[in-house]
Amino acid sequence: MTDCQGDGQGARTPMELYERLNEQGDKVRTLKTAKAEKADIDAAVQLLLKLKTDYKQMTGQDYKAGCPPSESTVVSDNGPAADGTNEEDTVDPWNVSTTNAKGVDYDKLIVRFGSSKIEKELVDRIEKVSEQKPHRFLRRGIFFSHRDMHQVLDAYEKSKSFYLYTGRGPSSEAMHVGHLIPFIFTKWLQDVFDIPLVIQLTDDEKYLWKDLTLEECHRFAVENARDIIACGFDVNKTFIFSDLDYMGASPEFYRNVVKIQKHVTFNQVKGIFGFTDSDCIGKISFPAIQAAPSFSNSFPQIFGGRKDVQCLIPCAIDQDPYFRMTRDVAPRIGYPKPALLHSTFFPALQGAQTKMSASDVNSSIFLTDTPKQIKNKVNKHAFSGGKDTVEEHRKYGGNPDVDVAFMYLTFFLEDDEQLEKIRQDYTSGALLTGELKKILIETLQPMIAQHQERRKQVTDELVRQFMTPRPLNFNL
Amino acid sequence: MTDCQGDGQGARTPMELYERLNEQGDKVRTLKTAKAEKADIDAAVQLLLKLKTDYKQMTGQDYKAGCPPSESTVVSDNGPAADGTNEEDTVDPWNVSTTNAKGVDYDKLIVRFGSSKIEKELVDRIEKVSEQKPHRFLRRGIFFSHRDMHQVLDAYEKSKSFYLYTGRGPSSEAMHVGHLIPFIFTKWLQDVFDIPLVIQLTDDEKYLWKDLTLEECHRFAVENARDIIACGFDVNKTFIFSDLDYMGASPEFYRNVVKIQKHVTFNQVKGIFGFTDSDCIGKISFPAIQAAPSFSNSFPQIFGGRKDVQCLIPCAIDQDPYFRMTRDVAPRIGYPKPALLHSTFFPALQGAQTKMSASDVNSSIFLTDTPKQIKNKVNKHAFSGGKDTVEEHRKYGGNPDVDVAFMYLTFFLEDDEQLEKIRQDYTSGALLTGELKKILIETLQPMIAQHQERRKQVTDELVRQFMTPRPLNFNL
Repeated sequence: MTDCQGDGQGARTPMELYERLNEQGDKVRTLKTAKAEKADIDAAVQLLLKLKTDYKQMTGQDYKAGCPPSESTVVSDNGPAADGTNEEDTVDPWNVSTTNAKGVDYDKLIVRFGSSKIEKELVDRIEKVSEQKPHRFLRRGIFFSHRDMHQVLDAYEKSKSFYLYTGRGPSSEAMHVGHLIPFIFTKWLQDVFDIPLVIQLTDDEKYLWKDLTLEECHRFAVENARDIIACGFDVNKTFIFSDLDYMGASPEFYRNVVKIQKHVTFNQVKGIFGFTDSDCIGKISFPAIQAAPSFSNSFPQIFGGRKDVQCLIPCAIDQDPYFRMTRDVAPRIGYPKPALLHSTFFPALQGAQTKMSASDVNSSIFLTDTPKQIKNKVNKHAFSGGKDTVEEHRKYGGNPDVDVAFMYLTFFLEDDEQLEKIRQDYTSGALLTGELKKILIETLQPMIAQHQERRKQVTDELVRQFMTPRPLNFNL
Repeated sequence: MTDCQGDGQGARTPMELYERLNEQGDKVRTLKTAKAEKADIDAAVQLLLKLKTDYKQMTGQDYKAGCPPSESTVVSDNGPAADGTNEEDTVDPWNVSTTNAKGVDYDKLIVRFGSSKIEKELVDRIEKVSEQKPHRFLRRGIFFSHRDMHQVLDAYEKSKSFYLYTGRGPSSEAMHVGHLIPFIFTKWLQDVFDIPLVIQLTDDEKYLWKDLTLEECHRFAVENARDIIACGFDVNKTFIFSDLDYMGASPEFYRNVVKIQKHVTFNQVKGIFGFTDSDCIGKISFPAIQAAPSFSNSFPQIFGGRKDVQCLIPCAIDQDPYFRMTRDVAPRIGYPKPALLHSTFFPALQGAQTKMSASDVNSSIFLTDTPKQIKNKVNKHAFSGGKDTVEEHRKYGGNPDVDVAFMYLTFFLEDDEQLEKIRQDYTSGALLTGELKKILIETLQPMIAQHQERRKQVTDELVRQFMTPRPLNFNL
């Protein structure tokens, strides 16, 4: 008897299994045409059915000849990895965890997610096209992965514009420095390319996932908008919106949501996001709402009804499942696929094993922290890669790869040479943990103070302006 | 060994099974407290687990002590009936079919759906409270079932107002006379009680379910609105809306949609509507959009933010699953449950076995039919309860219970005495099929001509007025 089990499980990826299914389908047809023995045909059919079941299990979708598995089926993020290997890192929009003190293995993630690494060549190209020194997040591999960024640059070189889309889930009033990463980088992209930007605040998502009222989530959205605005965005080029407001302010946005919702099945969101039958229908349909801003005609006030302006999404890589789904749907509803730039995660003070939590005040530096709080938190909570005693540290040196103070400096210290010198001195033992932490404290204190100063300048009227659907200063 | 199978299946309804589970839980606790034999405890626990599995299977929900099964779990409409009896009628929002020429067994439906029959006492009470002769649809049991109508009247007698909500799925431009039933009755209720009315056109639903574009569905919605307006609604008391428009015009409406979506799981909509894992996420979340107009604060422009104005929904009984779900959610989000008045189905010309289809021109009288088309359709297609020859008919008489011409007259002939005389004459054989059909033709021709005349008067501007979110002439 054919060992169905063995055969089905041999395929390690949806594409391999898909190809195995094509072969088996051909085999069944050949046997039938050749009028082979019934037992042989039956066995072949049985294996075909088994492979179909495996395929459905792996991808959450039915096998269809001629329809290779889509981008969004490349990975099953939840539960055991689809390819059967034993992944230790969990990365999805709601959970990020790893057992490695250096943090998530991002190279493995690129393979699992099917995205592309941001190689030096791409960084150089961005420099050439933008005529600007690449942002430190690009120089240092903090934005490390992408989808279709070359295509965006190709088009840009031919004077075809694009727009930026990023967002935030407003789960509390308090934002920490890690939350600023996508906004700091997005602001740089906007300055460099001079293009429109839309920022989605998913207050509806937070209501669906958390034990919060609609009013709380909406209030957090507006409060978070203040911090985002304080990053320095240009009100003439930026539209910030709360889902709870904009879904009820734009028929065009809702039309795109429904279009997306028609083209994604429960099987697919189950595969991509790990939803179960016990999840509420709001969660199940929410991915379409995060997908909709990827299409320019969701914002007719900005793009005048054009549906062909390409979207570039800078975001942390845990958001990629949403956009794999979006890219899968896009061509089926006649829209261009959004391009992506993915960042690594900002480590918690306690170490890179986990993403920071807005609910644990000691897990990060908050945007409301005083200089004293910053100093105390860094000194008390920042996980150190140094040795236990000064003597040992001088002798053996520290490990910057697991040292949170050093990691934070890679995010916020602009000067490459200074950073490299710190690395060398810390590794050699010339720089002590306390000294390293002092450099970080002196980097963060003015940065946070300046943020607080800028946030104070953000008036209610300015927030209202940013959050009003209106044309931006572009002729698209 | 305990016969788990037998015990679990003995319960015929979710409530019976729930009570059986409570008992079994008590039994397990008693055994444990009494430190009974391990084997006895194990057997009791095993049965408890089995009952829980059965409960989940029957209701789509997890058993929780202290939480009896909700209204929306009373019936599993799709697939075999939850109570194990062999129902022949299929009734859900997308399928209505029966093998009985007299139509669906409505008394059985009341039991299955857990609604209440509209008894003569309720009709009399409506007459007393409204000081109007009850509409023929009430006198003749066409509206035959209700939920909480007494409560609406209790409140009304204490000068507490309510509002009406009904709707239509705009699947094509063409509406037939059957589509008018809820609107004719709703207009009567509005006239008699002098209350606000909202009419939902679910163009988003039609896009999700049918092979139609968004633009087509929206156009059908506007065209259908013309026919609805032609029923004579008062523009100062009536708001008609397309979902595709209103979802993007009212943050309050979307907020209610999200609230409902948070409180309904996929398990529940699977149980209520028969959705599967292959359904698109738009279908899965749509029930919340049909539920939202049941809550007055979905229309702040009409109710000034009040969330406590009760809603009365006149609709065909196939829509009840939506509102069982709505009634189940309402108290959990702090809103009153909507009350309902359910109508029977309007039979197809070919007979009462099926609901009419807007896609088969010969299945009904369309609102665009000419007098000649009406005559031909009735004569050619209306299923007759008469005998094959005049002689036989004179001798044995006809059967009005299966005769479509007679059924149509019960819907549209106002005069009770005349209708009763027709019934008697047809039953006795004094009235021939051709004569009966002639009476129907002469009833329908002027009715449809008048409708067409009124529809012609419906200007684009009037449609725009009806469909603009605005205050109505009420002080609520």
